[in-house]
Formats: sequence, C-alpha cells, structure tokens
Amino acid sequence: MYVHRNAELPRASLPGIEHTTLAGRDLGALHISMWSQSLAPGAATPLHRHDCEEVVLIESGRGQLHIDGGIVEFGPDSTLVLPAGRDHQIVNSGDEPLRTLAVFSGTPVGTAFPDGRSIDLPWRS
Amino acid sequence: MYVHRNAELPRASLPGIEHTTLAGRDLGALHISMWSQSLAPGAATPLHRHDCEEVVLIESGRGQLHIDGGIVEFGPDSTLVLPAGRDHQIVNSGDEPLRTLAVFSGTPVGTAFPDGRSIDLPWRS
Repeated sequence: MYVHRNAELPRASLPGIEHTTLAGRDLGALHISMWSQSLAPGAATPLHRHDCEEVVLIESGRGQLHIDGGIVEFGPDSTLVLPAGRDHQIVNSGDEPLRTLAVFSGTPVGTAFPDGRSIDLPWRS
Repeated sequence: MYVHRNAELPRASLPGIEHTTLAGRDLGALHISMWSQSLAPGAATPLHRHDCEEVVLIESGRGQLHIDGGIVEFGPDSTLVLPAGRDHQIVNSGDEPLRTLAVFSGTPVGTAFPDGRSIDLPWRS
C-alpha cells in the first residue's frame, strides 16, 4: 500500500497528548516512522530517549526542548534534530496546542526513560 | 545545533518546484533528510528513484503517484510510502499548489533516473 488517508488512521492519546502514527512498520514502511502529535498547553512528554534519530517539525505553537541539562526555546516553523539515545523532553510552554510532526530513523521506535526502562506507548510506533 | 528556524534556511528551485531542506547531514542529522516542497499546478517531478526509503506527507493539494506502471490518485492529508530504489513520479494534478513534506531514511539522499544516471539536485539533500 503506497497511499493512505491520514483521517482513517487510528488515534491514540496520553494525558495532554493526541497522537496519530502516519507511517511505520504497520503502514508499509521499513525504515521510517512518522508521528503526528498535539500537546495541550502546559502538557509535556516525559524525559525520554529513542533507539534511533528523531527529527521534529514544529507545525504550530511554542515550546521548550529540555536536553543535555539545558532548555532551548522554539517557536512555530522550527525543526529539532535529536540524536539517537539522547534524553530529551518537549514541553508546550505556550497558550495554544503545540502541533508536531516527528520522524524517526527506525520503525518500530524504541522509547525508554533515562534509567533505561522501556516505555510502553499506547500506539503502534 | 538541535533547533533551527525553517525560514532562515536556504531555498532552491527547479522548474515548477520550490524546495527547502529542513533536516539533513548539513543540519545535524545523521540518518534522516526532510524536504519541504511545493509543486505548481501542472508541475511534476521526473520519474526517479532514491537510494533510501521515502515517506511523503501531503500537506495540501491533490496529485498523482506514478509507480509500478500505474497511477494512484491522492488528496490532502495523505501519506505516501515509497520503497528504496523504486521508480516513481509525483504530479500536481490539481489547480492549487501541491505542498509536500518528504522524509528519507538516509542523508544525503541519492537520486537517480530509471536508467541509473544520478540526478544532481540544486539543493543539499
């Protein structure tokens, strides 16, 4: 299957995070996962890391990237490049939804807390 | 560099195609390239292939994917999954710009015509 309609894909959520997997192992991709997410104002991911590289396009909203013990502020129409295995956290620091498109250099995507415990996500990654 | 502003990135073009590389080897990524493109109504890529997997998010507009000797029509908010090495062509068959976000499982991205001749693109891939 080469083409699919995003509106027909399953949706999932965590508190403050709405998620749709647009591409991945279950959708015909062998090497790439693509996640569309919306974080509510004040919401944040946990501090976590992946087993592959991640590139995040900020479609709208404002936020903070917590990484390497520091904080990098970002606005809409920005791109974040996150190395594999690097702990990071994304926080919606604005007053509107933070809409992101996250792309990974592997599928499925392994996700873990900083102590190495695997995070069992409620979506096909 | 983890965060960059897309508006500050170099732009490039081919006839009917406006291009910005949002992520890739020159922007801190090791495994992923991300291209933002807009195809004018009636414009098309050449028939071509890449040396890595490609996932294309259709942000707006309508088009056709020519692949495997057939044509698949697509509309906005669709996702295309294109295997590495598979010849394909994207055509804007609508009457508004076809805006796409293409992501690749390698960087830089190798691009070739069906006969194997390398395509020398006017952007850092």
